[in-house]
Amino acid sequence: MKKFLDKDFILETETAKKLYHEFAADLPIIDYHCHIQPQEIAEDKQFDNITQIWLNGDHYKWRAMRANGIREEKITGKSSSDWEKFENWAKTVPYTLRNPLHHWTHLELKKPFGVDKLLNPSSAKEIWDTCNAQLQTPEFSCKGLIRKANVEVIGTTDDPADSLEYHKIIKDSGFETKVVPSWRPDKAMAVDNTSEYNAYIDKLAQAAKMEIKSFSDLISALQKRHDFFAEMGCKASDHGLDQFFATDYTNEDITAIFSKVRNGQELYDEEILQFKSAMLYEFAVLDHSKGWVQQFHVGAIRNNNTGMFNKIGADTGFDSIADKLVAEDLSKFLNRLATEEKLTKTILYNLNPAHNEVYATMMGNFQDGEIAGKIQWGSGWWFLDQKDGMEKQMNALSNQGLLSHFVGMLTDSRSFLSYSRHEYFRRILCNLIGTDVEKGLIPYDEKLLKEIVQGICYYNAKNYFNF
Amino acid sequence: MKKFLDKDFILETETAKKLYHEFAADLPIIDYHCHIQPQEIAEDKQFDNITQIWLNGDHYKWRAMRANGIREEKITGKSSSDWEKFENWAKTVPYTLRNPLHHWTHLELKKPFGVDKLLNPSSAKEIWDTCNAQLQTPEFSCKGLIRKANVEVIGTTDDPADSLEYHKIIKDSGFETKVVPSWRPDKAMAVDNTSEYNAYIDKLAQAAKMEIKSFSDLISALQKRHDFFAEMGCKASDHGLDQFFATDYTNEDITAIFSKVRNGQELYDEEILQFKSAMLYEFAVLDHSKGWVQQFHVGAIRNNNTGMFNKIGADTGFDSIADKLVAEDLSKFLNRLATEEKLTKTILYNLNPAHNEVYATMMGNFQDGEIAGKIQWGSGWWFLDQKDGMEKQMNALSNQGLLSHFVGMLTDSRSFLSYSRHEYFRRILCNLIGTDVEKGLIPYDEKLLKEIVQGICYYNAKNYFNF
Amino acid sequence: MKKFLDKDFILETETAKKLYHEFAADLPIIDYHCHIQPQEIAEDKQFDNITQIWLNGDHYKWRAMRANGIREEKITGKSSSDWEKFENWAKTVPYTLRNPLHHWTHLELKKPFGVDKLLNPSSAKEIWDTCNAQLQTPEFSCKGLIRKANVEVIGTTDDPADSLEYHKIIKDSGFETKVVPSWRPDKAMAVDNTSEYNAYIDKLAQAAKMEIKSFSDLISALQKRHDFFAEMGCKASDHGLDQFFATDYTNEDITAIFSKVRNGQELYDEEILQFKSAMLYEFAVLDHSKGWVQQFHVGAIRNNNTGMFNKIGADTGFDSIADKLVAEDLSKFLNRLATEEKLTKTILYNLNPAHNEVYATMMGNFQDGEIAGKIQWGSGWWFLDQKDGMEKQMNALSNQGLLSHFVGMLTDSRSFLSYSRHEYFRRILCNLIGTDVEKGLIPYDEKLLKEIVQGICYYNAKNYFNF
Repeated sequence: MKKFLDKDFILETETAKKLYHEFAADLPIIDYHCHIQPQEIAEDKQFDNITQIWLNGDHYKWRAMRANGIREEKITGKSSSDWEKFENWAKTVPYTLRNPLHHWTHLELKKPFGVDKLLNPSSAKEIWDTCNAQLQTPEFSCKGLIRKANVEVIGTTDDPADSLEYHKIIKDSGFETKVVPSWRPDKAMAVDNTSEYNAYIDKLAQAAKMEIKSFSDLISALQKRHDFFAEMGCKASDHGLDQFFATDYTNEDITAIFSKVRNGQELYDEEILQFKSAMLYEFAVLDHSKGWVQQFHVGAIRNNNTGMFNKIGADTGFDSIADKLVAEDLSKFLNRLATEEKLTKTILYNLNPAHNEVYATMMGNFQDGEIAGKIQWGSGWWFLDQKDGMEKQMNALSNQGLLSHFVGMLTDSRSFLSYSRHEYFRRILCNLIGTDVEKGLIPYDEKLLKEIVQGICYYNAKNYFNF
Repeated sequence: MKKFLDKDFILETETAKKLYHEFAADLPIIDYHCHIQPQEIAEDKQFDNITQIWLNGDHYKWRAMRANGIREEKITGKSSSDWEKFENWAKTVPYTLRNPLHHWTHLELKKPFGVDKLLNPSSAKEIWDTCNAQLQTPEFSCKGLIRKANVEVIGTTDDPADSLEYHKIIKDSGFETKVVPSWRPDKAMAVDNTSEYNAYIDKLAQAAKMEIKSFSDLISALQKRHDFFAEMGCKASDHGLDQFFATDYTNEDITAIFSKVRNGQELYDEEILQFKSAMLYEFAVLDHSKGWVQQFHVGAIRNNNTGMFNKIGADTGFDSIADKLVAEDLSKFLNRLATEEKLTKTILYNLNPAHNEVYATMMGNFQDGEIAGKIQWGSGWWFLDQKDGMEKQMNALSNQGLLSHFVGMLTDSRSFLSYSRHEYFRRILCNLIGTDVEKGLIPYDEKLLKEIVQGICYYNAKNYFNF
Repeated sequence: MKKFLDKDFILETETAKKLYHEFAADLPIIDYHCHIQPQEIAEDKQFDNITQIWLNGDHYKWRAMRANGIREEKITGKSSSDWEKFENWAKTVPYTLRNPLHHWTHLELKKPFGVDKLLNPSSAKEIWDTCNAQLQTPEFSCKGLIRKANVEVIGTTDDPADSLEYHKIIKDSGFETKVVPSWRPDKAMAVDNTSEYNAYIDKLAQAAKMEIKSFSDLISALQKRHDFFAEMGCKASDHGLDQFFATDYTNEDITAIFSKVRNGQELYDEEILQFKSAMLYEFAVLDHSKGWVQQFHVGAIRNNNTGMFNKIGADTGFDSIADKLVAEDLSKFLNRLATEEKLTKTILYNLNPAHNEVYATMMGNFQDGEIAGKIQWGSGWWFLDQKDGMEKQMNALSNQGLLSHFVGMLTDSRSFLSYSRHEYFRRILCNLIGTDVEKGLIPYDEKLLKEIVQGICYYNAKNYFNF
């Protein structure tokens, strides 16, 4: 029986172990997409206790606690103490067996905290004390944690209207990890709600220091902000979408729709689809003009539980996997860009694993020989970000495309403790490849295997994003 | 080479064997959803031969026989003798290799009949004789078979208009296994066919001893029957649906639609959707008021073969897996109930495995911390009720939720010989967990593993249904 | 560590090895569906070099090269030499690790060329020379290659308007491999483009030596060609479909639609669906009348990249997997035929693996006991034609139907070097079954296992097609 979480965790064969320990383990991390707050890095924030850095804001843990029969008050409630919340999480952890949270939890306690014990009600107090004590030391500040994890680049997620002031502070501070913004213009296409949209456009106008009266003003304002993001080191955009939008429209349609919105009128469904299609296209053109990478995260149903949304808002653990069909709109969207020679480097992330092969084969239609792996299918995202999901993604990618050119892992995380997910990914990757080697399905060519493993873990992303 | 169907059948590692033999094997069975006839238990029926108890009514076997080139007459025909049917089944069994029928067949011959031979044309006569001889003994009556299988509770499937007279007889007989009805009101929403629907409503009216003229009469009648079912020990409902229904409607709409039906008028498609949406909601409200468990079996295309339907009717092996999209309506239906605080304990069963992750993640949106595992994703159903399907369900459940709180297996069977499917399930479960332990993916914490395994095999269902 | 591609390639257990080497390896090949050119067989073509026989026309390799950052000119360009193209393929091969191309490439170099080296830039020149030298010898002509591969039957893919002159030449030449046409009438239903359709109908009229003015003329012409194909040894049809078509129509509708087309008028979408539904039905009726096998390949999105389509045309590597829903139309189409007792032997191939279980269960609705395995679910097609895809297909088929009666592998290939895919398939099949035996999931009954393995590899297809 293999020991839980030992040095060869997940590595089932000798070749897998060799690939991981000799080639993958020590490479720096390029965390090209995440949701951590640049302000916290800029201020080199120190957290009071492990609940604050680990449980607050982590809706994965909240969902598990709710499923474990813990009442909301003990999870997100203001009347519960940080210790109470931690205690309830400790109560939940044993029942997360076989859920990725069980692995993540113990990987994160082990590194950076050096805690080898399993978290449960008996160990909770000791672990609470150990972690909290360490969190008071300078090594466990935000910057300290990033340094410990050997992170070379962090790509945050930022609105076009954002001042990026914290990115500037971080840069000026001489912090050895590059912290670059990513352009996330979702709000600039969110015309579903006219009044919220107009408020946002006003904010954008302010950031761009210009008036936005017409659709062409909107594009100009976005262009100005896009240029500013580029100056700040941005090399990638990111888009959170229910679906791809590729409804036909004319520029006149869009001009009229935008005026309608600015006049406070509600739109018809068809107009919303047209407008979103236009914006998605315009975003893609902007990215192409700068040679950025565009990322698309597609296919969640968000805020399924209205009661809880009204109580505690969005991104609190009430989202799930959608099943809308995707192939046709995705094809039409990419085809237009390819035909106009405006298709930039692109990463597609899907949430429903039943769509894996649709995405994995769609890529191949738009590889244009310009650069290896120009169109990428992103690593297992959100609900698929576990051993099973990552294996399925890498297997389908292997079957339908070239795994060798895969840009690999990103945390997509809100937490400074998530960097061990890169270790997790690397172990899974080395296990897949190593096991195939041992079975005689892949030849043992050490030089090539090293190149491929190191590419996926580090160099491919480095070359692809060119941060 | 491991021997076929030996004592460690399916158990691939030492830990798997230990978990199964020490913790799981001897637990009683709670078969909370099946289709056996309470009348046969009440009368403690004795079957003449193995064709009658094993082949008659088993459309899984019929399908396999048809695919094996056996003509219908030899499968369901009245002119074929029971022996001929058995002989043709014996001819088919070898060709079911890798189909669950091959495992089920030999598990069921082994227990309760003690037959260790493989069924095929050479062994057919001997097995026929052995089984038939045993079937004549009192131990092999319906009650005898239930006793042998160590069944603590049986949940049957019953129409609201049913008198439940046999449940009463069973109860009064002092039979040590609890046989409780489940509320299956599908016919009360089946307005697709006006004349059949009206005939049913008349039958319901009779059972409820009241007139049903208006929609509110209908709800009152259902309420009366619901109360009666509760008195009879019912703790769960069950619904067989093509899809979830969550079309908007007003009470006026429904009142008008119901009057239209009662006047014998055909409905528009939209009215059918509205009416079904209303009924599904009303059923859910009834169940919530009593704290019952509501079960939904969703996603079959039934009666695909019209010719055969006309010849031998429904439920004869001409159904298959549908691919209708599910996420949006399912979310809307559950959200309404959650928002109104009328969402009772719920088990969702899907038929298309491509929907697994949609279901597995939908659950999490409605776990409210009230009880652990309040919203359940049911074990592999019908076409998914095999090793592969159950493993996929348990893996997806593990990845997206808490396997620990899973209420586990049910037979969904029409046969008194299907209880070995609980053994099958337990072996598969123990193998999954045991193998993970051996690989170091799960820590070896015997106390916790025992609690989790025994929970899934028995205690979770016991606590959840509270029969 | 197992050696790559050794004699036990893919075979993980002793039983797997035994089944493959003793029972499967030496059986002849029935390649019942492929796209090789009968003209090349008739002329017993000799290829100048390995690029011409191996790279030209192989859009799988082209896709991989594009994804590897090779510019189009070096892949399909007229200005690049055959050596340059081969060199760029050699550059790509190492990066195809884990893609089926990596296996196929080395299987095909090994057999027939006897090359054991891995293809990469260092070995490229040597392999180029070795293969080209062999290609000059008579043993490596088209007929030579077919002989070497022990191919008993080849089913080509032919248009109803085709003269089949090359099939006649081959037959008359006394070539020991039977080369039979398959009826592929896709163009006869392609009314999407009126002018192309009319040009085709004129060509068909010429082939049938009659005028086609009305819909009944069309059916008569097709009947004549169908009869001619039958005379030429045809036993199967094949249909490439985006989706199944089962829209309701009357004969009057179809007559009117056809006249409209012949008058050069464009059709409404609904009319296109009606016409295609009618044609699909008529094709099925023709096949049923002759007892042929009808094959359906369903679910690609073709020509996603308009720019590349305009440059280099169709079938050049810009197709991918669609996600249109399938169950309802497929059920309706098959049900009509079954009800009218006009459903002939049928093989269904799907491209989206998320539809596997829908197809696998749909079959069972239409098995009529006439012959074993009358309705078949075809082996992993196109994007699914790899180890993973074939395993999933065989596992789902095992779970939902009878693997024993499976007609097994076909190359679907345009190349004379693809016959090793039958070896690949047989190894995978034997590995699946052998591994189940070793795990005790299948009893070790050598006679039965031999019958089943040999059936799937050879005899089932032989009996099913009756070439």
